[in-house]
Amino acid sequence: MFFDIAIIGSGNVSYHLAYRLKQLGNPPKMIYGRSKSDLMQLTKDLNLPPNISDLKNVDDVDFAIIAASDDAIEEVAKTYTFQQHTIVLHVSGSKSINVLSAHKQFGVMYPLQTFSREKEIDFEGVPILIEGNNDDATRKIEKLAHFLSNNVKQVNTADRMKIHLAAVFACNFANLMYHQAELLLRETQVTLSDMKYLLKETNEKALQIGALKAQTGPAIRSDLGILDQHLSILATDDEKKEMYELLSKAILKMRK
Amino acid sequence: MFFDIAIIGSGNVSYHLAYRLKQLGNPPKMIYGRSKSDLMQLTKDLNLPPNISDLKNVDDVDFAIIAASDDAIEEVAKTYTFQQHTIVLHVSGSKSINVLSAHKQFGVMYPLQTFSREKEIDFEGVPILIEGNNDDATRKIEKLAHFLSNNVKQVNTADRMKIHLAAVFACNFANLMYHQAELLLRETQVTLSDMKYLLKETNEKALQIGALKAQTGPAIRSDLGILDQHLSILATDDEKKEMYELLSKAILKMRK
Repeated sequence: MFFDIAIIGSGNVSYHLAYRLKQLGNPPKMIYGRSKSDLMQLTKDLNLPPNISDLKNVDDVDFAIIAASDDAIEEVAKTYTFQQHTIVLHVSGSKSINVLSAHKQFGVMYPLQTFSREKEIDFEGVPILIEGNNDDATRKIEKLAHFLSNNVKQVNTADRMKIHLAAVFACNFANLMYHQAELLLRETQVTLSDMKYLLKETNEKALQIGALKAQTGPAIRSDLGILDQHLSILATDDEKKEMYELLSKAILKMRK
Repeated sequence: MFFDIAIIGSGNVSYHLAYRLKQLGNPPKMIYGRSKSDLMQLTKDLNLPPNISDLKNVDDVDFAIIAASDDAIEEVAKTYTFQQHTIVLHVSGSKSINVLSAHKQFGVMYPLQTFSREKEIDFEGVPILIEGNNDDATRKIEKLAHFLSNNVKQVNTADRMKIHLAAVFACNFANLMYHQAELLLRETQVTLSDMKYLLKETNEKALQIGALKAQTGPAIRSDLGILDQHLSILATDDEKKEMYELLSKAILKMRK
């Protein structure tokens, strides 16, 4: 039940994948990348033996996981030589499985999570969306994904792209909203940290009863007096005013 | 150190305030409101004796908390007769302290939280923003707020309105983003619940390192290829497309 795995890349996803594999008693056999010093640092941070390589011939492994930036995947995949039976994987939400089609066995293993080096990830429940270029590859990728997480789903490229887009709204755009709040709070006695319970409650409520039912605030109450008051506070801030108008309009429509 | 409190209103905020006061061994002395049946239900839900009134003369209490909808506060305050020494409070983020200026002692006690009847609130750390019409009132309101929460701040009306606006971004608009995700996920195998770890991580990261530094996603990486891909997925959905463009533009500007 153990896997021979090579990881290509030295970024955040590489780090967290290698960390999780090590945690499960199955560290990656080898880590590849362009910069030997980055790789040394990575294995040092992970407290792994420096089983790294700047060579282009990938060892005889079950899986070669390309954890490169979206734009680099195709080029990286071409740079390396893999064994025929090695399943070559990328971990991107927004790239087609076919960027790897030069290989015999290939696929995608996309963890639906945001990764930063500084913060440990509870990988256990992170959904992993998988896709293989044939049944054999899919079955094997599924096994690896189940080793990493208890939430594995087989999803084709078109749906995965849509799910990634949904994550941009739920994660990146939600964070942008936190940033707007941060800016508005600047000259007050309150900070974003003081809103900890508010953010947590908003989050939990949407997960419990669904975001449609969980919507609160002046727009969903159609409280036009407060909307006007807010727009006048934002009168000299075109960017926030435009956001406020567009997003409140969308919430007003949710009332129907 | 105990307070004689009357609550006027039978909505979510009344419920949670009364619940918290009861939890602390200081249940409200009386609950007032228009509808006797709503009030009966409220005290029943709270397992309080039916110490309710549909009369307009408020008992001799230290505080009368008007927990009515924003638009109703002024009218409700005029409908009731209070003792001279009673401090009349509202709990709104967006209404001026002066809507209560017909009274002798008055102020604001705004809990920075979103309340639903179905969900218990951990009141302990919820920031309570207070304002009084004179030093004596302010001091007394501060005592009451400290009884309810360990995070009390004295904030004037203008700042409180700005903080409320910030909360609309961080809470109501973030929830709208969750709703957009919900809609996009509809025809996929993934639900918003599967994004639980992603939402939690996004939330915690913004609180830990600030939302500006925590921003991730294609726009902050200036990955124009992915932005184009997402816009083409949204080609037939004008509302989401407009949001996507406006919010990505704002994130692209954060790079500077």
